[in-house]
Amino acid sequence: MKHINIIGIGTGNPEHVTMQAIKAMNAAEVIFLPLKGADKEELAEIRREICERYVTRPAVRTVEFQVPQRQTADRTYTQSVDAWHGEIADIYGELISGLPDGGTGAFLVWGDPSLYDSTIRIIERVRQANSIEFDYSVVPGITSIQALAASHKIPLNLVGEPVEITTGRRLARDGLRGGSTVVMLDGEQTFAKIDDADAEIFWGAYLGTGDEIIRSGRLTDIAADIQALRTEARQRHGWIMDIYLLRKGRDFEE
Amino acid sequence: MKHINIIGIGTGNPEHVTMQAIKAMNAAEVIFLPLKGADKEELAEIRREICERYVTRPAVRTVEFQVPQRQTADRTYTQSVDAWHGEIADIYGELISGLPDGGTGAFLVWGDPSLYDSTIRIIERVRQANSIEFDYSVVPGITSIQALAASHKIPLNLVGEPVEITTGRRLARDGLRGGSTVVMLDGEQTFAKIDDADAEIFWGAYLGTGDEIIRSGRLTDIAADIQALRTEARQRHGWIMDIYLLRKGRDFEE
Ligand SMILES: C[S@@+](CC[C@H](N)C(=O)[O-])C[C@H]1O[C@@H](n2cnc3c(N)ncnc32)[C@H](O)[C@@H]1O
Ligand SMILES: C[S@@+](CC[C@H](N)C(=O)[O-])C[C@H]1O[C@@H](n2cnc3c(N)ncnc32)[C@H](O)[C@@H]1O
Repeated sequence: MKHINIIGIGTGNPEHVTMQAIKAMNAAEVIFLPLKGADKEELAEIRREICERYVTRPAVRTVEFQVPQRQTADRTYTQSVDAWHGEIADIYGELISGLPDGGTGAFLVWGDPSLYDSTIRIIERVRQANSIEFDYSVVPGITSIQALAASHKIPLNLVGEPVEITTGRRLARDGLRGGSTVVMLDGEQTFAKIDDADAEIFWGAYLGTGDEIIRSGRLTDIAADIQALRTEARQRHGWIMDIYLLRKGRDFEE
Repeated sequence: MKHINIIGIGTGNPEHVTMQAIKAMNAAEVIFLPLKGADKEELAEIRREICERYVTRPAVRTVEFQVPQRQTADRTYTQSVDAWHGEIADIYGELISGLPDGGTGAFLVWGDPSLYDSTIRIIERVRQANSIEFDYSVVPGITSIQALAASHKIPLNLVGEPVEITTGRRLARDGLRGGSTVVMLDGEQTFAKIDDADAEIFWGAYLGTGDEIIRSGRLTDIAADIQALRTEARQRHGWIMDIYLLRKGRDFEE
């Protein structure tokens, strides 16, 4: 039977890669590398560098493939994601079909495969289509949440308290609760619309890369600075990936 | 100035260790290894094995130290945690004082240092006491949440939806919400008290180790099985570490 390794590679620093990931990369006949459009060329470069540094078995090949863009016109969010997953599943299906019998392929996933990533769902979809027989494993990776906390040298949770992980879209809809809230996938700088004198923000962009920027402070004091910084950085790079923790309350208040 | 590396080492599988962690371990004059009582001897063994496998610089020494137990008698939770952190801070202070001038020490942290772990807080406390001058860095690690999701081969979040990370104590108090809830630090098997026909559970114990056990299914169908399995495993090993995801709802329901 063919086998697929879905491998988390961390979020920008090639040294986020684990020993388990290196082993799983070297166990593959082919490592499939996604290309996601010009703005993400730097991310493709990081994936290539990871392969160059850590793949030591000469028989391992790398194959690059284009990831289609999600079409949003005339579709609900659900329809657009579903159709997009379908298109990618067809591409994955072809890549997996091309593996030799009993061979192993690897998909490298940014961060950890379990967190706001569709690779596991799409691989399941290919498998459930039943036209190719294969099984798969998942190798965990450092998430952008861990990278954010490490760079700020902070715990995510207040002592004994919960942590919410959410998206910009959901934060805009639900508002900010007390405690610790990590916000990902926020293209709208939703933090700047929150007017809460008790909230602190710990923000980071391009975490793990040479271009990493971090800022922290009282939200109402520094939201405008972060907005300006983010706009400038985004223009300069042509793209941005950022994440932040909003925190209300302290350890040991009862 | 002295320097401390707080290094996440993953949750049981020595191959969870990252290249960055290996570098940070080898940069240290001394790696400090905690001993936490007989039941945790197996965890100490994993830490020693990680040092043996990955420390290649001969000058690196390891020093083991006893971690005091938290005293709970006649104290609120807040008081007991605060006093306990104080005791550990004194021990850390001594260990750091013992480092040569300009030397580097390393603390190995189970999983990731940002998640339900007090090392960063205690190191900050030692620094704020101002009697020893040093600075410190944090190296992220694979969390038990990533290990759980990888073993079950599942995404944590439903498409575009939030994830809550909480404790057994808080789940018992707050009840189960919709979506995805990860429960850690649950000595009371709180899942078994939740009567919700729509909830699924993805449970794992000793994740990453040779003794890993995982179970998943409809919560009301398998809660009793997991309880029995957990009790038996805990008796056999003398200790247990387990974690679970509770999930209500599906991708793409609107
Ligand atoms: C599609 S999600 C993928 C998350 C990834 N699987 C992980 O484990 O971090 C992309 C989001 O992750 C966050 N992110 C990923 N890498 C990042 C980085 N290097 N710096 C800052 N944020 C990052 C951003 O919030 C971005 O919108
Ligand atoms: C004090 S917290 C430390 C968490 C750790 N810093 C991390 O990143 O996973 C301990 C809790 O983590 C979870 N845990 C840690 N290691 C685990 C493992 N190998 N298997 C299952 N659960 C684990 C359990 O819920 C346990 O009660």
